Amino acid sequence: MDKKYVIGVDIGGQTSKLGVVDARGNVLAQSVIRTDTHEDVNMYIKDLGDAIRALAAQVDGGMNSVRGVGMGVPNGNYYRGTIEFAPNLKWNGVIPLADLVSKEIGLPVALTNDANAAAVGEMTYGAARGMKDFIMITLGTGVGSGIVIGGNVVYGHDGFAGELGHTTQVRTNGRQCACGKVGCLEAYASAIGVARTAREILETSDSKTSLRDLAWDKISSKEVAEAASKGDQVAVDIFNFTGNMLGAALADFVAFSSPEAIILFGGLTKAGDLIKKPVVEGLNNNLMKLWKGKIPVEFSQLKESDAAILGASALAWEL
Amino acid sequence: MDKKYVIGVDIGGQTSKLGVVDARGNVLAQSVIRTDTHEDVNMYIKDLGDAIRALAAQVDGGMNSVRGVGMGVPNGNYYRGTIEFAPNLKWNGVIPLADLVSKEIGLPVALTNDANAAAVGEMTYGAARGMKDFIMITLGTGVGSGIVIGGNVVYGHDGFAGELGHTTQVRTNGRQCACGKVGCLEAYASAIGVARTAREILETSDSKTSLRDLAWDKISSKEVAEAASKGDQVAVDIFNFTGNMLGAALADFVAFSSPEAIILFGGLTKAGDLIKKPVVEGLNNNLMKLWKGKIPVEFSQLKESDAAILGASALAWEL
Repeated sequence: MDKKYVIGVDIGGQTSKLGVVDARGNVLAQSVIRTDTHEDVNMYIKDLGDAIRALAAQVDGGMNSVRGVGMGVPNGNYYRGTIEFAPNLKWNGVIPLADLVSKEIGLPVALTNDANAAAVGEMTYGAARGMKDFIMITLGTGVGSGIVIGGNVVYGHDGFAGELGHTTQVRTNGRQCACGKVGCLEAYASAIGVARTAREILETSDSKTSLRDLAWDKISSKEVAEAASKGDQVAVDIFNFTGNMLGAALADFVAFSSPEAIILFGGLTKAGDLIKKPVVEGLNNNLMKLWKGKIPVEFSQLKESDAAILGASALAWEL
Repeated sequence: MDKKYVIGVDIGGQTSKLGVVDARGNVLAQSVIRTDTHEDVNMYIKDLGDAIRALAAQVDGGMNSVRGVGMGVPNGNYYRGTIEFAPNLKWNGVIPLADLVSKEIGLPVALTNDANAAAVGEMTYGAARGMKDFIMITLGTGVGSGIVIGGNVVYGHDGFAGELGHTTQVRTNGRQCACGKVGCLEAYASAIGVARTAREILETSDSKTSLRDLAWDKISSKEVAEAASKGDQVAVDIFNFTGNMLGAALADFVAFSSPEAIILFGGLTKAGDLIKKPVVEGLNNNLMKLWKGKIPVEFSQLKESDAAILGASALAWEL
């Protein structure tokens, strides 16, 4: 039987999304189960197994045509196939998730964290097809990263490499980051970081902006993007500040691995050129001469609703 | 004939050092030729060929027992075997050095820059034996780096990856770096950086220190180290400042590739614990929790006089 499909599973704190994917990156069928209703991981594995079998039944060949399962999970360790101390999941300690799922369904299973999965997805189906050296930055609630060198994701000696959201951009009077450090990129270039920048500017200036019409706790990166797209100068400045800082950080990442491109993914990229232009500016202002103007910054080419499933599924082609 | 030796060539602006090396990292014979007296690279190649043949004649089997030649060169590009626009050499533009040498001597030749060669040397004969993931930082006149991931040096898409000396540590009011950027690690953690720190402190404070007895242009990292080892508090503070900054930079590098160790090499390491302690402190103060206290910082184990030749030679084992 030709094993021409893979299954991707994206585990989030509340729900787990899964889909059957073909070699071109078409999601042929998908479904969702709850993550947070299972205090016991073994009960979750049973439900997930049922969902995987039901999904496979929707494609020709069923489970026999599925090569394997790839999973994108918080705090996932690729080497060990484990979830380790994930703060947003109910299962404590180290969970040998890949093994548990593999035993339940009788197929090989690989897992990694969300950002690494996104990088593999982009390389397999998206903007990084044909690239062997690139860096993927995910701009969501936090800032994640997946680094590809020589066609392989960089996992490091322990499986946890690629924490570029927690490199330090502001060493003096930097913002407190959720990770415990101060001045992390994530405290500035995430959705939450953009909202913090907006509040800081509103507090410390009296410039006129439509953002003042919003309730304080309703200020989000989405509202800032909307205001900016209508020409609100303060909102535009917020994106310029954010993009310049992200670009400067990217320049350091280029000095590390000299990628042929940087791919941006996630909510903030919806702002389009509002974020891309200052990123490119900040990047080129901080690159060494030999790289100036030579490292393209591109947006992900994966449809956002499918991206997490696609990224996870891409891991399974290597099984 | 058993090809049990390699030859390493370390090309500097003034002289080129070469040596025959066995698999254990013993330099069995070595010699030196001038680099800067040859305006024409072809004349240099002839001289280098003669020197290589003379060197090989000193070991059993002669040229027949030499597997190949590895070269550490300024601005060396591993992929292309070229020197590209090296500011300290007389040969302009792009020189296909590996090809030229290979044709002259009839052996395979590989080259890379000095810091990458140092990393390969350390992995082959030194402190990084058995390691697959580590970062080598060379602290000399400048700050260089060689990054090893999964047992391979990271060259990036263009052959120029690993410029960690030019990541930005101080974004506001940072020092001008020789590379044209501002706030680079190299402007602080190099021998020149230490001397600049010393002059800045002498200028902006009136603290008592033996460094004030030196002529202004005689202040170097060596004098600062000597004063510090005699207990001069200002000199100790200079190393603390330098080490803390280098350590903070290393924390960002760990977030990138999660190495199992960081190896320091070069002049500044002669200061021993004076530099190592603040480096380790700066590193752990800036690491994410999952890595705190877990990433050892070690000094090179290669004898300094042999290290450049050993590093270059190590490239040739892979030929």
